[in-house]
Amino acid sequence: MRPSNRAPEAMRPVSLERGVARYAEGSCLVKFGETHVLCAASIEDKAPGWLRGQGRGWVTAEYAMLPRATHQRTRREVTSGKPSGRTQEIQRLIGRSLRAVVDLKALGERQITVDCDVLQADGGTRTASITGAWVALHDCLQWMKARDMLKGEALKDHVAAISCGIYKGAPVADLDYAEDSSCETDANFVLTGSGGIVEVQGTAEGAPFSEEELLALLKLAKDGCASLVELQKLAVA
Amino acid sequence: MRPSNRAPEAMRPVSLERGVARYAEGSCLVKFGETHVLCAASIEDKAPGWLRGQGRGWVTAEYAMLPRATHQRTRREVTSGKPSGRTQEIQRLIGRSLRAVVDLKALGERQITVDCDVLQADGGTRTASITGAWVALHDCLQWMKARDMLKGEALKDHVAAISCGIYKGAPVADLDYAEDSSCETDANFVLTGSGGIVEVQGTAEGAPFSEEELLALLKLAKDGCASLVELQKLAVA
Amino acid sequence: MRPSNRAPEAMRPVSLERGVARYAEGSCLVKFGETHVLCAASIEDKAPGWLRGQGRGWVTAEYAMLPRATHQRTRREVTSGKPSGRTQEIQRLIGRSLRAVVDLKALGERQITVDCDVLQADGGTRTASITGAWVALHDCLQWMKARDMLKGEALKDHVAAISCGIYKGAPVADLDYAEDSSCETDANFVLTGSGGIVEVQGTAEGAPFSEEELLALLKLAKDGCASLVELQKLAVA
Amino acid sequence: MRPSNRAPEAMRPVSLERGVARYAEGSCLVKFGETHVLCAASIEDKAPGWLRGQGRGWVTAEYAMLPRATHQRTRREVTSGKPSGRTQEIQRLIGRSLRAVVDLKALGERQITVDCDVLQADGGTRTASITGAWVALHDCLQWMKARDMLKGEALKDHVAAISCGIYKGAPVADLDYAEDSSCETDANFVLTGSGGIVEVQGTAEGAPFSEEELLALLKLAKDGCASLVELQKLAVA
Amino acid sequence: MRPSNRAPEAMRPVSLERGVARYAEGSCLVKFGETHVLCAASIEDKAPGWLRGQGRGWVTAEYAMLPRATHQRTRREVTSGKPSGRTQEIQRLIGRSLRAVVDLKALGERQITVDCDVLQADGGTRTASITGAWVALHDCLQWMKARDMLKGEALKDHVAAISCGIYKGAPVADLDYAEDSSCETDANFVLTGSGGIVEVQGTAEGAPFSEEELLALLKLAKDGCASLVELQKLAVA
Amino acid sequence: MRPSNRAPEAMRPVSLERGVARYAEGSCLVKFGETHVLCAASIEDKAPGWLRGQGRGWVTAEYAMLPRATHQRTRREVTSGKPSGRTQEIQRLIGRSLRAVVDLKALGERQITVDCDVLQADGGTRTASITGAWVALHDCLQWMKARDMLKGEALKDHVAAISCGIYKGAPVADLDYAEDSSCETDANFVLTGSGGIVEVQGTAEGAPFSEEELLALLKLAKDGCASLVELQKLAVA
Repeated sequence: MRPSNRAPEAMRPVSLERGVARYAEGSCLVKFGETHVLCAASIEDKAPGWLRGQGRGWVTAEYAMLPRATHQRTRREVTSGKPSGRTQEIQRLIGRSLRAVVDLKALGERQITVDCDVLQADGGTRTASITGAWVALHDCLQWMKARDMLKGEALKDHVAAISCGIYKGAPVADLDYAEDSSCETDANFVLTGSGGIVEVQGTAEGAPFSEEELLALLKLAKDGCASLVELQKLAVA
Repeated sequence: MRPSNRAPEAMRPVSLERGVARYAEGSCLVKFGETHVLCAASIEDKAPGWLRGQGRGWVTAEYAMLPRATHQRTRREVTSGKPSGRTQEIQRLIGRSLRAVVDLKALGERQITVDCDVLQADGGTRTASITGAWVALHDCLQWMKARDMLKGEALKDHVAAISCGIYKGAPVADLDYAEDSSCETDANFVLTGSGGIVEVQGTAEGAPFSEEELLALLKLAKDGCASLVELQKLAVA
Repeated sequence: MRPSNRAPEAMRPVSLERGVARYAEGSCLVKFGETHVLCAASIEDKAPGWLRGQGRGWVTAEYAMLPRATHQRTRREVTSGKPSGRTQEIQRLIGRSLRAVVDLKALGERQITVDCDVLQADGGTRTASITGAWVALHDCLQWMKARDMLKGEALKDHVAAISCGIYKGAPVADLDYAEDSSCETDANFVLTGSGGIVEVQGTAEGAPFSEEELLALLKLAKDGCASLVELQKLAVA
Repeated sequence: MRPSNRAPEAMRPVSLERGVARYAEGSCLVKFGETHVLCAASIEDKAPGWLRGQGRGWVTAEYAMLPRATHQRTRREVTSGKPSGRTQEIQRLIGRSLRAVVDLKALGERQITVDCDVLQADGGTRTASITGAWVALHDCLQWMKARDMLKGEALKDHVAAISCGIYKGAPVADLDYAEDSSCETDANFVLTGSGGIVEVQGTAEGAPFSEEELLALLKLAKDGCASLVELQKLAVA
Repeated sequence: MRPSNRAPEAMRPVSLERGVARYAEGSCLVKFGETHVLCAASIEDKAPGWLRGQGRGWVTAEYAMLPRATHQRTRREVTSGKPSGRTQEIQRLIGRSLRAVVDLKALGERQITVDCDVLQADGGTRTASITGAWVALHDCLQWMKARDMLKGEALKDHVAAISCGIYKGAPVADLDYAEDSSCETDANFVLTGSGGIVEVQGTAEGAPFSEEELLALLKLAKDGCASLVELQKLAVA
Repeated sequence: MRPSNRAPEAMRPVSLERGVARYAEGSCLVKFGETHVLCAASIEDKAPGWLRGQGRGWVTAEYAMLPRATHQRTRREVTSGKPSGRTQEIQRLIGRSLRAVVDLKALGERQITVDCDVLQADGGTRTASITGAWVALHDCLQWMKARDMLKGEALKDHVAAISCGIYKGAPVADLDYAEDSSCETDANFVLTGSGGIVEVQGTAEGAPFSEEELLALLKLAKDGCASLVELQKLAVA
């Protein structure tokens, strides 16, 4: 039995609200239940230094949590002078996930940064971030298209993400904090709209897991991401 | 004529929404027009080190802006390794303002931190922060009172803040970004519910200003803060 | 009764000694009683990056205290890796104050940095710094004028500063450390030679203060700064 | 055809040399072809702060590369003041992998740190590190057992790791640098001696990959790790 | 011919002015010609952490230059976040030199920090610092003795320092900046009052030097330090 | 009697193994007994910024120890955010020593960095580093010569280093850790192949030392460095 009484394959209620950041070129407030992330896309009119002169652009992401997004207040990372290892892992993951569905040549020598700021955290902040960041990125690219800034179609596909895990011996979808902090295995999946795998990150928190368990989690993730992609389509329609 | 067509003494629409941060002991989303700040109060069960053993508590504040709160994206402060001078000035100001209306002995050896995170910025983020932080602090103290954690009445008065300025030669209240970036004189006032001055910070951006101008700005501030205090009363009623 | 037995409006003995830093383009050792600050102005032949190509210059300031300027030794800020919030507030204030009386276009694309290093601290280090920094800046501009580096008159007016406060219920001028650490209200005023207000920063340390008290402090400040400006005139004569 | 002419399932020559760090409680120089990592295990007689008083110990890892381990010299991380995101990801991965096969209660309140320093890098430094770190950890635990420092059997299983990928459309095992920098999909697998999965990290560098491809890579990884475990057994025999 | 027209063995005018820092337990403004260093000794009532419980104290030093001590303004080290290698070398040298003549057991578990802040720099700042720091330390120990804080005689001898060098082929004493920046060999000597060598640091800036040259420089240093010790005796008499 | 039973003038067994870093332009694993340092030379095709446009190159060095090179594990310097004072002293010394025997004009506007990473430490790491770094530098210059990158002969002489000390009253050569940590005086000498002195750094750890003792140590150093230079000649033959 899950703490939330959800069925093993049931996700939390998901909402994707566009246009929440007045000044950003694209934005989305994504909610996976009590996990809320504000995603905002910004264009910069030059590519990062290591990419200059190659006629291509770049998409990157930054991630942070408000100090009181969590049950207990956490210190701001600026007070320790640097992003934590966890933060860096997450923002690299979001960036890779978005780049997997963007044609960087179409951007020209520009960079899009998608900021994912967690207003409230109840597990699954990185997967909610990826799912919402896609919407912010979509709107940013629409904004650019409307100004003739793109060379051809920049957005190749949807991308969405979900965390699944083995909780009390059973594979379940969309872990919330209560599950995440006590599950045996935790796996994040990033999938495209056409069902391809962009990223799999599975970790045994207790005992190692088996190939069968990995496949069961992948099955849940495919169904979950398909639903998320449907919601993205509705949101940007 | 003000860019927003407001009368000289007219503030922007103000709203104070309580309870927006699910896990915080007190919280408030404050809006001064298009300036939106999420204020969240957190209790920590020990006083800061330099205060230990004195039987008193402390109230402090931290302040930050989301990168895309602004018209142009700003870099996260964590990437430069430390809060900017401006950030430090503002969070010290918010902390002093709140402490001016709290009986620190009533807290016992505990610290309350009020995080003020600017979701959207259109001028006046520090004055909105102070005004909203008072509501978050109020609710946090109510939460403590309900658990018998306070020794007597901790909250002595309201505190609210407003920025006024000389814009095109005329004193105006509650500067928005368009005014703030081109006014001749900018002054922040922090006042209590009973009308006492907690803080005055007036700066000539261009030509020096006169005693008469200072008094005209103070007059606007008194009226504005009185309105803000009324809104605080409604919010916590 | 003030700890120093001074009359309420009496400042400490002030001295302004020019030319104390052999290699600087302008310098002044300013003493407000036992508060001693070494001010040295340096020219750099390029404007800061954000100002390039605009045909204007910049004036900025840096501030620090020797570790044993104070009654108890304080740690060097380099050991914590960054200037404290207090240091940043003060150096921003000094810079703004100086810029209020300089025609930045006359400098050309150059930057003048005035370093204010506190050799001994007995309260009022920021106001002494501003008062002495004006002399260093004056001499630096004279040095430039002698070398035909200025386009027209760069220095528009004097600027001086004083801290006043409510001490044991009475408004007094030029707080020393004993007063500063126990006064009810502390206000710093930066005024020009012609009596205009460049900056007012008033803070209630205990109970809030009233409009009348603010005006009484402003009155003291006007008289005090007028005296300081006379001393500046004598110093550079 | 692989750049090294290896068969798709063929690993590079692997060697595990124990006892190479004279002063460490356990050490191993691991070579996967031209990738060489020096692993050294150190005991500290107290657990990390957040674990104190729980009667358990901890195993952690640190990872770094010598500046000229690589084809082009890379800057030391100390010159940028902090470990890069990549370094932090890797050392967290090594630590998790080792903890998956250790009974932390058997350690008592002690911490073992395994330092993995890459002397030469030709791809697969993290998987070589995990494989070699197990040997260093094994010897460290033997050292402790010989001194009666363990409560029961601390080492529950072997753990080894391998990177596999889709290179020119074909699944191949143990990517070297030439393959790693141009493959379509890159996946790191950490497996136990009994074949359980501790960690899967698969990333599409170009096009997304399919479930079938994931399974093909897992098959290669199982065979590869089984060989590595055999080599570990020989090494510590 | 030396730029200053001094004879090869002639030092610059040296002065040692005690009691210049009102709040320090001991202080000295030392001048070697145009090199001026303010030395201030501070007592802290606990030993550094690594020395606790051993019944001994510690003497340490910190060193810095005001930004405009030099011909060209130098950046404050706090802006780069850490003391430079040069600064650290110098403060370690001053600390070692002072400890060579102090009985650390006599201090009890206390630390004395001598801050050496260069107000003006014309070569030889480290040797002037050591020579002046001894006077500050002496007065600090007297202050402690007057309060019965010492166990027996803490100060065992004088210590002084001088830089000598090979300038245009000839050995000369007490290099000033003009010599220091163009000499062939530069050597700093720290000697005790009884003539023992505490530290020798000789560096060939151009061609290597010979044993004979090293001995010639040592001869100059012995004579110079003997004079400095005489001046110290006069200063503290 | 020395702990190692060596005769006073006897060095530890020394070996110099070239070509150990596959990708470096020159490399050497140097062993002074149980002290092992990996030296690797890297060419960068531009001079440091402050040297640009002068037609000269630069040689610099970096130094670090693996955490478990030592008897007790030491923290990585990256975790404290900056190299320690000791590290900076050592890398500056290595760089100066190498530059003393290089014609920087022959390099053109290029920089050679020699990384000295201590794999195992038993005293004398800086002197071993200098001695091995010369070999790495030699091979790097050969590599450049073979590619016609040098203007004339770049390497003017050998350079080698040794630490000598007064141990239990007697002068001894090539201190190991046991001697280094308890000797009365410790002196590092850097000498050229032709016997010139590049650097002398002598420090009294306990009582000051005399001129006679300094000369005895220099005698030992001259003999020791002569042997080291012979080994360098054999190594690069």
